[in-house]
Amino acid sequence: MAKKYVRVAVDAMGGDLAPAEPVKAAVQALERRKSLHVTLVGKEELIREELSGYEIPEEQMERLEILNAREVIEMSEPPVNAIRRKKDSSIVKGLRLVKEGTCDAFVTAGSTGATLAGGQLLVGRIRGIERPPLAPLLPTAKTPVLLVDCGANVDARPSQLVQFAQMGSIYMKNMTGIENPRVALVNIGAEEEKGNALTKEVYPLLQACEGINFIGNIEAREIPAGAADVVVCDAFVGNVILKLYEGLASTLIHKIKDALMTSLRSKLGALMIKPALKGMLKEFDISSYGGAPMLGLRGLVVKTHGNSEAVEIRNAIEQCILFKKKNINGQFVEEMGLDKPKDKKTEMS
Amino acid sequence: MAKKYVRVAVDAMGGDLAPAEPVKAAVQALERRKSLHVTLVGKEELIREELSGYEIPEEQMERLEILNAREVIEMSEPPVNAIRRKKDSSIVKGLRLVKEGTCDAFVTAGSTGATLAGGQLLVGRIRGIERPPLAPLLPTAKTPVLLVDCGANVDARPSQLVQFAQMGSIYMKNMTGIENPRVALVNIGAEEEKGNALTKEVYPLLQACEGINFIGNIEAREIPAGAADVVVCDAFVGNVILKLYEGLASTLIHKIKDALMTSLRSKLGALMIKPALKGMLKEFDISSYGGAPMLGLRGLVVKTHGNSEAVEIRNAIEQCILFKKKNINGQFVEEMGLDKPKDKKTEMS
Repeated sequence: MAKKYVRVAVDAMGGDLAPAEPVKAAVQALERRKSLHVTLVGKEELIREELSGYEIPEEQMERLEILNAREVIEMSEPPVNAIRRKKDSSIVKGLRLVKEGTCDAFVTAGSTGATLAGGQLLVGRIRGIERPPLAPLLPTAKTPVLLVDCGANVDARPSQLVQFAQMGSIYMKNMTGIENPRVALVNIGAEEEKGNALTKEVYPLLQACEGINFIGNIEAREIPAGAADVVVCDAFVGNVILKLYEGLASTLIHKIKDALMTSLRSKLGALMIKPALKGMLKEFDISSYGGAPMLGLRGLVVKTHGNSEAVEIRNAIEQCILFKKKNINGQFVEEMGLDKPKDKKTEMS
Repeated sequence: MAKKYVRVAVDAMGGDLAPAEPVKAAVQALERRKSLHVTLVGKEELIREELSGYEIPEEQMERLEILNAREVIEMSEPPVNAIRRKKDSSIVKGLRLVKEGTCDAFVTAGSTGATLAGGQLLVGRIRGIERPPLAPLLPTAKTPVLLVDCGANVDARPSQLVQFAQMGSIYMKNMTGIENPRVALVNIGAEEEKGNALTKEVYPLLQACEGINFIGNIEAREIPAGAADVVVCDAFVGNVILKLYEGLASTLIHKIKDALMTSLRSKLGALMIKPALKGMLKEFDISSYGGAPMLGLRGLVVKTHGNSEAVEIRNAIEQCILFKKKNINGQFVEEMGLDKPKDKKTEMS
């Protein structure tokens, strides 16, 4: 494998639409990005069958590998157990490729719990990182906002939230080109003294933290309006925000669709507004942003939605190329004053 | 004052549209409900000026009183300080009317913080209630859901959440007529073992709690779909849910409106769908449900939005009549096995 490629392992068995959509995503990404190498991880015969549906130029085939993995971790399995028991699963084998340095990143639409557990247990943290957060992008009225953390750190410590803010800020600056990302703390009021025990402790720490543009507390109401570029919270609150975002948008859109079917007049009107509405809904569609990175690992792990179609997985794969080229893990180490690890791989350089 | 009336104190100075909208709400409520007595609390000359704009029949004037209060607590004031210092404010005087038993309930669109602090400090809790939660109704795809707590209890204890569930259940059964309200715990997964330290401790307590229909954990995604009638969480999480609900709905509706203005075709379509869409938006409009009750006090305190128009405040006033007639505080004492207080007023009977 040539050194010049960004090497991404893709979970061919992950998500509701596997293996069809992950394989399609890999094929498309290889066509679009010449610097990309993909390792499809999963049941080899299923992957080969999917691949046989495409006419893939030889140059692209040379940048594609298959790693056979006979087991699949189901969404419902207890994560830590699954990671420990199913050593021949696509998630365990994909994460190991990152751990060993064979790949730079792993993209999966599979079990979130197993991915989070495996990221910590198998790939491991950059030295000095307390906990790796999962950080999805959410659509807003303006540019998308990075929500850190939606992962496993439900009873987070103040110092962890400070690291979330630092990593989120570096990630957004590099991945979206925003110069001085506005970092805010999710809270129940704008004033410094508002909040629960955690946020009251975190606020002064964020204020004192150099290298981030901390703009203070943000109420959940202001998040969809686009009042910050990075919002920081513990994973319980982050999970509530992420899930409510999805649920409420879906409910409102369904209700609007129902409303449009109530009369002949509204039905005719619906036909006329369809193109405009479609554009707007697409803009508010989370999948177009790719996946949620798990930050602070010795490598990169990206989680996409369980129902991901090829476009979302493809965007996630392409996201890994930028992450590598910008040397974001190296920047974490540099800017956050983390110990330089002994293992060169860690910086993904 | 005749005993037969339900006596509601209304904060004439509370909210962005005071005194016009609170006074209008009181006038309308008196016209609609013969069993209602209203005390308007605030600057007397302003209230009289507003009242002079209406032709109020004598029978209704007899059920209307004014209590002069010279001070106003601003939205931005530190709540506890404001309650302690501004003894001649409409909120302090209104709450005192409930404390003294002169009124059964107090309705305000003023400072949430001052109302919460004053509810606890001035009105006081029913004996045995650990903390009084604020419980707004949220619209869903089906019937509205009661969210307990959105108030001041940001670092709540497990036993408090159990009381929130019990009070929420009794409130919903009586106020909306749902026979066996589905009570759920807001969590980050459906399984019992999921969650943070608080929810893991609360889950078995709710399971063991008699008299409520506990259906387990609910992910925030399922709340807008209407998967439960009462959802229980600490006030930090509840605040995030409430504010995100408001913010996301508002952002989406704005984006849809913008989208509809992009072309002549979509503009024409927009005209045709307007009536259908308006009906749907009204259904999803929080204000039509009245205000959020603060539960577990020795009396009733209802908080409406800061930007409440007359209809929301009027609904909140009418809500107080049902609360009193159903003897909901009495039911709390009875069904939750709380000590019968010495003070008769507590049961609002």
